Amino acid sequence: MFDVRVALAQLNQTVGALEANATAILRHATDARHRGAQIMVCPELAVPGYPPEDLVFKPSFVAANLRAVRQLASQTGEMPIVVGFVDLDGGNLYDAAAVLQHGRIMGVYRKIKLPNYGVFDEKRYFASGPTGLVLDTGPLRIGVTICEDLWVPNGPHIEEAQSGATLIVNLSASPYHHGKWRERQRLITTVAREANAAVAYANMVGGQDELVFDGFSLVTDSRGQILAQAPGFEEELLVVDVPVEESVPREPAGSQILPLSLPIHPGTTLQAPEICHPASTEEEIYQALVLATRDYVRKNGFADALIGLSGGIDSALVASIAVDALGPTHVHCLFMPSVFTSEESTEDAKTLSRDLGIPLRTIPIDPAIDTYRELLAPVFAELKEDITEENLQARIRGNLLMALSNKLGFLVLTTGNKSEMACGYATLYGDMAGGFAVIKDVLKTMVFRLVVHRNARARGPWLPKRLLTKAPSAELRPHQKDTDSLPPYDVLDPILEAYVEEDLPVEAIVARGFPRDVVRRVARLVDRAEYKRRQAPPGVKITSKAFGRDRRLPITNRFSEESG
Amino acid sequence: MFDVRVALAQLNQTVGALEANATAILRHATDARHRGAQIMVCPELAVPGYPPEDLVFKPSFVAANLRAVRQLASQTGEMPIVVGFVDLDGGNLYDAAAVLQHGRIMGVYRKIKLPNYGVFDEKRYFASGPTGLVLDTGPLRIGVTICEDLWVPNGPHIEEAQSGATLIVNLSASPYHHGKWRERQRLITTVAREANAAVAYANMVGGQDELVFDGFSLVTDSRGQILAQAPGFEEELLVVDVPVEESVPREPAGSQILPLSLPIHPGTTLQAPEICHPASTEEEIYQALVLATRDYVRKNGFADALIGLSGGIDSALVASIAVDALGPTHVHCLFMPSVFTSEESTEDAKTLSRDLGIPLRTIPIDPAIDTYRELLAPVFAELKEDITEENLQARIRGNLLMALSNKLGFLVLTTGNKSEMACGYATLYGDMAGGFAVIKDVLKTMVFRLVVHRNARARGPWLPKRLLTKAPSAELRPHQKDTDSLPPYDVLDPILEAYVEEDLPVEAIVARGFPRDVVRRVARLVDRAEYKRRQAPPGVKITSKAFGRDRRLPITNRFSEESG
Repeated sequence: MFDVRVALAQLNQTVGALEANATAILRHATDARHRGAQIMVCPELAVPGYPPEDLVFKPSFVAANLRAVRQLASQTGEMPIVVGFVDLDGGNLYDAAAVLQHGRIMGVYRKIKLPNYGVFDEKRYFASGPTGLVLDTGPLRIGVTICEDLWVPNGPHIEEAQSGATLIVNLSASPYHHGKWRERQRLITTVAREANAAVAYANMVGGQDELVFDGFSLVTDSRGQILAQAPGFEEELLVVDVPVEESVPREPAGSQILPLSLPIHPGTTLQAPEICHPASTEEEIYQALVLATRDYVRKNGFADALIGLSGGIDSALVASIAVDALGPTHVHCLFMPSVFTSEESTEDAKTLSRDLGIPLRTIPIDPAIDTYRELLAPVFAELKEDITEENLQARIRGNLLMALSNKLGFLVLTTGNKSEMACGYATLYGDMAGGFAVIKDVLKTMVFRLVVHRNARARGPWLPKRLLTKAPSAELRPHQKDTDSLPPYDVLDPILEAYVEEDLPVEAIVARGFPRDVVRRVARLVDRAEYKRRQAPPGVKITSKAFGRDRRLPITNRFSEESG
Repeated sequence: MFDVRVALAQLNQTVGALEANATAILRHATDARHRGAQIMVCPELAVPGYPPEDLVFKPSFVAANLRAVRQLASQTGEMPIVVGFVDLDGGNLYDAAAVLQHGRIMGVYRKIKLPNYGVFDEKRYFASGPTGLVLDTGPLRIGVTICEDLWVPNGPHIEEAQSGATLIVNLSASPYHHGKWRERQRLITTVAREANAAVAYANMVGGQDELVFDGFSLVTDSRGQILAQAPGFEEELLVVDVPVEESVPREPAGSQILPLSLPIHPGTTLQAPEICHPASTEEEIYQALVLATRDYVRKNGFADALIGLSGGIDSALVASIAVDALGPTHVHCLFMPSVFTSEESTEDAKTLSRDLGIPLRTIPIDPAIDTYRELLAPVFAELKEDITEENLQARIRGNLLMALSNKLGFLVLTTGNKSEMACGYATLYGDMAGGFAVIKDVLKTMVFRLVVHRNARARGPWLPKRLLTKAPSAELRPHQKDTDSLPPYDVLDPILEAYVEEDLPVEAIVARGFPRDVVRRVARLVDRAEYKRRQAPPGVKITSKAFGRDRRLPITNRFSEESG
């Protein structure tokens, strides 16, 4: 048993930013060398960014990514760096890991297990690699794997262990959903025991469109004991002395063997590594939303965000997230009251903006409502008022937000939650208008929990407490309440989780104790709102099944359980 | 050599409409029996509809589809029917074909080759079947295949032919793009020669969200000679006497062999079968747009469509398509002039609506522009006019269309073309607001060609000829022309085809003779408009690469060829 000093670079890369991504890798490599690391492992596709999606079909993109890896290799020395890139061979693309050292690409591993479920489309892009790769460094053999390789039975780590690997490294880009870090711990622990090898798992961190990568890179010993876990939701260079057994290869070795020298262990002692984990579900979700929002705004070239404050809890939570993501000077709010806006909402919007330290602009929308009414009167004639007039108010607000966005260059953050998105309780081109839907995957009951959590945190000002007690209302007609149209959220949300995330049939949800008519109604609402969700802005996935590419349902769809 | 009478049911099914789909199959089966068919072949997944996407993850959907197939089987007699359905076995789903006869499911074939490119995600859903299926009817053996099985080298038809099949049937749902019918002819011809077998190819017809299936089901003899081709863009029962060789099985047979009796040939003579094909590219695209629009509107439960007529060529074409799809009494137009609307546009909108026989409502938007200006004045203060004011006009129009849609129950058809969608020359929540984007995949130069074609067709009234001669303009500011912002369309469109459909790098497009600065600018425009396209309504795919699930690019993307 001896120690090998491994550095895991938990990087926040940007898709397509090849030079900046390579620079970040080199910066961490310098740091790793200073801390005596013998090898550095980066996340999956750290050079091109993850997921590059159909960019890999552009030959110019793949070529630029290959140039970037060669350029990166040319700047390496004694310490090997294992980096993810898109490899090209014989017309096939591979999700690959290059071992860079002494100015050269020493070897390449190609991912074998390609996920093609949930948000993943990897079989669309990549061919499977042939075998594992084992780095033969003398007393220690190191098996290289990429993300999904460890998540399926009989991954290449088994074969690599048979080829003598007593340390398995994994390059990952594992998207967040709440509790995912625990699933990963269980997985890595199992892998370590299966392979009887220590495992060093390097995860990506940061936001990319609808995905956020939470980090929490970790290291276990060969018994599956967790030795270190990096913090979540931030960049980190995790340097750990990993105790490993001397390798005793068994023949025949199925894996490709690459001889590689490692720099010698510096002999110094590292600080006892930390095992970081989130304080609570609310804390982890809140941090995921903050990071995803910051990265979406900034990686898309914006500095400032704009939010329509209604005085309700959803927009209050989004404003708070935006302030934590961008700082109060980069968050702008617009309050757009109508004759239906309550005094409480007006007060709460003002209190909130004052307490968060963000400027509040106010534009009352009644004159615009009146103008539209007059314009539409000849067409609408004697038809009575209905949802049309409510939608108009929401769309006027959407227009005003977009006008400010266009004129001032702010990105509009929408404020709809998952309960609303699920049921279609939102106005297309109205409250759905904007660039990023921060809490689109957060059920309303979790919105409440996040606000309670936000107020309980030591730092930062409180959000108005009345947000937690007043009845939710869209305030689009007199005395309106959400419960006029939807079941109470503590009934609705568990039904939505069962129907959307678990894909359970109506009867199975009824068996959990919910009234049949309510479950049926909710299922119908969800089915019929697909067309709205298709035009929604992207938003952060925080559950195991978010609307978006996680859940690909047709709009044109006559199936319902009653009819089936 | 003898004849077998095969019926191909070219069905227009609806995803999820299990009962209605089964009823349609039975109706055609009755017709086929009356016409003496010995076997009827339906398209791929004809029972659940294609593509069912993530509906197959709902156990209740799969169960209902299995019930529907059993129910369908119970109504069969002597004539076997081969129908597509979702099969379930050992936790795996299969894209499968059931052979129904004598009230029972006689056998099942499971698709082996699963497409996972372009618009297809079949590896997300289905496991691959193990072997081919050969129906042993005595003198004739029939090989069963499903769609993609024929499109890849060494499909199961090879093995089935080795097992003695001299007729290959194929159940397809092959989405349209222009010229696809020719590709299919070439493919089927090649398959027939490879297998030395006649081929009967049953394709789906009809619209499903962004896809339209064009039909053109066909039959070839064993030398690849096309014997019959059904019309495109409509339901059809194609009944053909197919000359086949007596089967001489070679051992060992790789395919599963299913003994099956066929009813005897009636001995009558059929009318000489037709070989239908589109009259021109314009005719085929126009018909695809008509069918897709009709099906999207009706299958989603609407009767009427609403279009914002600007007096320009795009909205004129969409109105014409809508009238041909739904009939003039189900199409409604709204003309929303502003101070920037030209006299020509006003005249052309009026002429068009009169000639097409559709009512034109007019709502001038200037009062709404004024109201917004007043509301925004305190915030905008001294900032000068820019794109903001143009977008506001488009959004006011979007609001008015959506108000009529909400109040009157009409589906709004948007009128943006592919050249605009590509370059982001469209306003989110403005002219992009609506339920279905009819010409979203039609380049502007093709819009012109389609209008010329529409006017040249014998039936129907003409569209105003001035549409073809006046310079395209969004009319959002004085003397505006599209060419103020975009290259001329005859330069822009070939660049877009090269960049979007062919994924060519800038330099390769320059090599085709386009100025480097123009190509670069276009590439940048396309890259930057991804966020807009993500919120666009669905529209009909008519090219080999449409925006949508055909082309999955990240919004957050720093790659550009200059930077790479």
